[in-house]
Amino acid sequence: MALYSQVLLDVPAGLQAEPLEITPDTVGGPARGYRVRLQSLRGGVSDGVDLIHVDNGTLAFTVIPTRGMGVWKARRGDLAIGWESPVRGPVHPRHVPLGEPGGLGWLDGFDELLVRCGLQSNGASEIDPVSRQWLPMHGRIANLPASHVTVTVDGATGEIAVTGVVAEVRFFFVNLRLTSTIRTRVGQPGFTVHDEIENLATAPAPMQLLYHINFGAPLLGEGARLHVPALRVAPRDAASARRIDGWDRYPAPTAGLPEEVFFLTLAADAGHRTRALLCDAAGRRGVSLGYDVRQLPWFTLWKNPAPLADGYVTGLEPGTNFPNARSFERGEGRVVMLPGGGRAVFDLELTAHVTADEVSAAGRAVAQLAAGRVPEVLRTPQPGWSAV
Amino acid sequence: MALYSQVLLDVPAGLQAEPLEITPDTVGGPARGYRVRLQSLRGGVSDGVDLIHVDNGTLAFTVIPTRGMGVWKARRGDLAIGWESPVRGPVHPRHVPLGEPGGLGWLDGFDELLVRCGLQSNGASEIDPVSRQWLPMHGRIANLPASHVTVTVDGATGEIAVTGVVAEVRFFFVNLRLTSTIRTRVGQPGFTVHDEIENLATAPAPMQLLYHINFGAPLLGEGARLHVPALRVAPRDAASARRIDGWDRYPAPTAGLPEEVFFLTLAADAGHRTRALLCDAAGRRGVSLGYDVRQLPWFTLWKNPAPLADGYVTGLEPGTNFPNARSFERGEGRVVMLPGGGRAVFDLELTAHVTADEVSAAGRAVAQLAAGRVPEVLRTPQPGWSAV
Amino acid sequence: MALYSQVLLDVPAGLQAEPLEITPDTVGGPARGYRVRLQSLRGGVSDGVDLIHVDNGTLAFTVIPTRGMGVWKARRGDLAIGWESPVRGPVHPRHVPLGEPGGLGWLDGFDELLVRCGLQSNGASEIDPVSRQWLPMHGRIANLPASHVTVTVDGATGEIAVTGVVAEVRFFFVNLRLTSTIRTRVGQPGFTVHDEIENLATAPAPMQLLYHINFGAPLLGEGARLHVPALRVAPRDAASARRIDGWDRYPAPTAGLPEEVFFLTLAADAGHRTRALLCDAAGRRGVSLGYDVRQLPWFTLWKNPAPLADGYVTGLEPGTNFPNARSFERGEGRVVMLPGGGRAVFDLELTAHVTADEVSAAGRAVAQLAAGRVPEVLRTPQPGWSAV
Repeated sequence: MALYSQVLLDVPAGLQAEPLEITPDTVGGPARGYRVRLQSLRGGVSDGVDLIHVDNGTLAFTVIPTRGMGVWKARRGDLAIGWESPVRGPVHPRHVPLGEPGGLGWLDGFDELLVRCGLQSNGASEIDPVSRQWLPMHGRIANLPASHVTVTVDGATGEIAVTGVVAEVRFFFVNLRLTSTIRTRVGQPGFTVHDEIENLATAPAPMQLLYHINFGAPLLGEGARLHVPALRVAPRDAASARRIDGWDRYPAPTAGLPEEVFFLTLAADAGHRTRALLCDAAGRRGVSLGYDVRQLPWFTLWKNPAPLADGYVTGLEPGTNFPNARSFERGEGRVVMLPGGGRAVFDLELTAHVTADEVSAAGRAVAQLAAGRVPEVLRTPQPGWSAV
Repeated sequence: MALYSQVLLDVPAGLQAEPLEITPDTVGGPARGYRVRLQSLRGGVSDGVDLIHVDNGTLAFTVIPTRGMGVWKARRGDLAIGWESPVRGPVHPRHVPLGEPGGLGWLDGFDELLVRCGLQSNGASEIDPVSRQWLPMHGRIANLPASHVTVTVDGATGEIAVTGVVAEVRFFFVNLRLTSTIRTRVGQPGFTVHDEIENLATAPAPMQLLYHINFGAPLLGEGARLHVPALRVAPRDAASARRIDGWDRYPAPTAGLPEEVFFLTLAADAGHRTRALLCDAAGRRGVSLGYDVRQLPWFTLWKNPAPLADGYVTGLEPGTNFPNARSFERGEGRVVMLPGGGRAVFDLELTAHVTADEVSAAGRAVAQLAAGRVPEVLRTPQPGWSAV
Repeated sequence: MALYSQVLLDVPAGLQAEPLEITPDTVGGPARGYRVRLQSLRGGVSDGVDLIHVDNGTLAFTVIPTRGMGVWKARRGDLAIGWESPVRGPVHPRHVPLGEPGGLGWLDGFDELLVRCGLQSNGASEIDPVSRQWLPMHGRIANLPASHVTVTVDGATGEIAVTGVVAEVRFFFVNLRLTSTIRTRVGQPGFTVHDEIENLATAPAPMQLLYHINFGAPLLGEGARLHVPALRVAPRDAASARRIDGWDRYPAPTAGLPEEVFFLTLAADAGHRTRALLCDAAGRRGVSLGYDVRQLPWFTLWKNPAPLADGYVTGLEPGTNFPNARSFERGEGRVVMLPGGGRAVFDLELTAHVTADEVSAAGRAVAQLAAGRVPEVLRTPQPGWSAV
């Protein structure tokens, strides 16, 4: 009775909802204090972008169906979660030139908290040596609009779910379908992402997925720290190798520091779950990611300690692979081959921490996974990991 | 008095009609049982696509002004005419990356019954060796929106015509204008396409046009057959050569079969008209194409006997040329040079058959054109026809 | 009290005005006889383009916020100012394939009176040898939509100003912001352009800006003449060198004449202002440009004496550089390096002349700048100026 479901978009059925707001009054039931709002942006490079704002009373976040079901920004109380990119989006895919020679067009739309890189490929761009197809940097999924979007609210439990379907299709080449459900519940300090990727073709298809999850100030700052149960850590390149000693700590925004990238493997618990915690210098605020290392066995850490105006940001990036060109990753066995009709499932959770106690608890959870192991820190780029 | 005309789109005049429906009540006059409907799609990769649905009481079809006046799908009673592409469109041109390196972007929008390939070029992509201009695969016309669209209905005769104007223009390089009229009449089992292509430039301009007309199930199926008054048949490549013996028959959808392409010339009657008939195994349903071999002297047959999910489809493709790169076709004399201010006219008809009698009659018409000639079947790719 | 200000677009605030009209009745105050109108185009390649029509009672012109604050056309009485391009726009940026291999896509949207070429680069396309970034022909600014637009009218003085903000941003590569104010006053025969370009990044950034200001018939015609206080004139290439003697005169529209390009430096007054006058053969109609040679030290003259249907047009192009590939210009010191947080300012005025007296006065102003100097006319392409 109090299970409310609203289709926001159904392209084949010719249905697109007008901007609307869903509240406890819309839904009925005992759950209180939440709000879901559909907004359509107009003008500039955002023209035509739809946003779904979800506020569960504790955590608020914004889903972008027009950009492959990415998550734009989140907020818990006065803690902004996400980052300030010089790109002021969200940017409609039509203003993101993925096919541009040189392969850097993806960067024109890069301003989100959570961006998927995939599905056919991610990492560096290339002409695929087998299919002769252009594989743009970080793939196409973040610049493909959903064709079907639903919001469901359970008025009894206060559970809110946004589900979107995004097709990455090219006749003869690829037919992958992402069905993403982003879920939260009244009062929860986080949300979960449940992604199903289906190969709708009859032949096996290569698939790659990397969650590019990005954080800036105020969480990030001088002395901010990453806690992960690392097994191995290696720099991607020579520049990163020079800063390997501080791989899990962050400097203040600094002009002239180059980006750094580290490749990691992480320990997990008996249920294959691992956790990463990013916290500020004072240990009073933080954010945790949780996921399954069978689904996402490789972890990339991106640090861009640039001045605030240039995008001071770190990316925590669990993936099916490292973000090298797909042909390199294929050679190293880091491309998923989905059988015809097959599917892969990915589950991720993000939790915001706003007290020292919450951060401590999250830190203990990571320490428990590490179980006292000292990570093996490799001081040079590893041949099978780094393409450079 | 009963001649009704409605401008649906006139960009310079700032006029775009809202979704509307035209019926005998709108038009007046004795003709009954038809309906024309303008629809605007929203969301996903179809956002902003306009569709014109024409139903003459016997045959229904959908024109896409936003995609160069292509015809999306048709239906006669329970016979669906067209195909099920893995691409779920119609796709707005802004989501079709024609400029993508490698030249395969056109495939992102490929799901129509009738797609024009042209006007400046069609076939394989290349950088034109003379002009240094990028010529994307199958050209730009199917991904250019009409700038002027009119619907006319004659309430006395029941004739319905949709006319659209599409400009393929690049300063310094090309200024071709397509004016396409798609016409039917109450009760007719088909429609005609009348295309005029004008070179609005003062200098002569190369022009190519190929009608990529695509059929899948249920018409296509194991034992389906193509009847054409072939003079010569040659495979495009080695893979097609291996299957030359069954060039006019179709297998069931089959995993692992590669696409096949055959190049043909067809006989015509004294009025230069020829016909092609595709019919199902039982000979109970079919579709005929009719056209003028002076306008469209070359016929390409594309067979993609893939599983249904991957796009089980055949393309019957009358053209001014074979779909090789334009530079190759130019060398073989298969590029039309339109003088400055000159024009070319193309006339095509499509008829659906839904009884054994209709199919038989259509088959006899083809046989009459063949006049007992046995086609010359060449077993290897022909140097002047195949670029591979 | 009679200072009226209306935000037409503010993307972050979710504000886009509906089509509207601003008249003296809207504004109040003594100024009379003007009108400002916001129009949104629908359909074809113009779908989604906003236009701001400004009419000060003497001069009318149209600003295109969707195309980087270019000026589409102007008119003084029955004198049309601008040109008739074979491209029938204005064309929405999504239909302009800047990333197309070969780099000619910009030409698909080229039909304006005033187009900015920049901001990161202009001139011939290239992959930048330092950053490895694609630099499309004439840059991106004309195909980027404004994100903030305001119209201000002073009801007392009759001053009308349109201000737009356009961001040219790519994470890691560029963060330039154009704030352009196009201003006129009731009764004035012209308008001014005041552009501020800010480097919002912390590191120095290369910047180039060229105003591609284009005129066709009826101003342009056989015997039309350019009056500029030229110091030096040189042809860009061999074809232009052959026509160096007539560099400041125009032939009638003629089939088969190639485009010509001349590179110039101009004299200025003590305040560094210079002027260029284009007038018709009879000396009865003309248009003047005024600008500061410290801001725009190089002047490119483009002549395309083609038949009317092909775009009979001349471009007067004051710039920070000549429109060669940026790497060439950098080697010659013609790239502005904006410090982090730095800005550059550009001021331009355009005035229409509709009587012999007005043209004479404008001609005298140019002659005064020339001060009797005979320009140094170089008969061959100059190594440091021409990349060809």
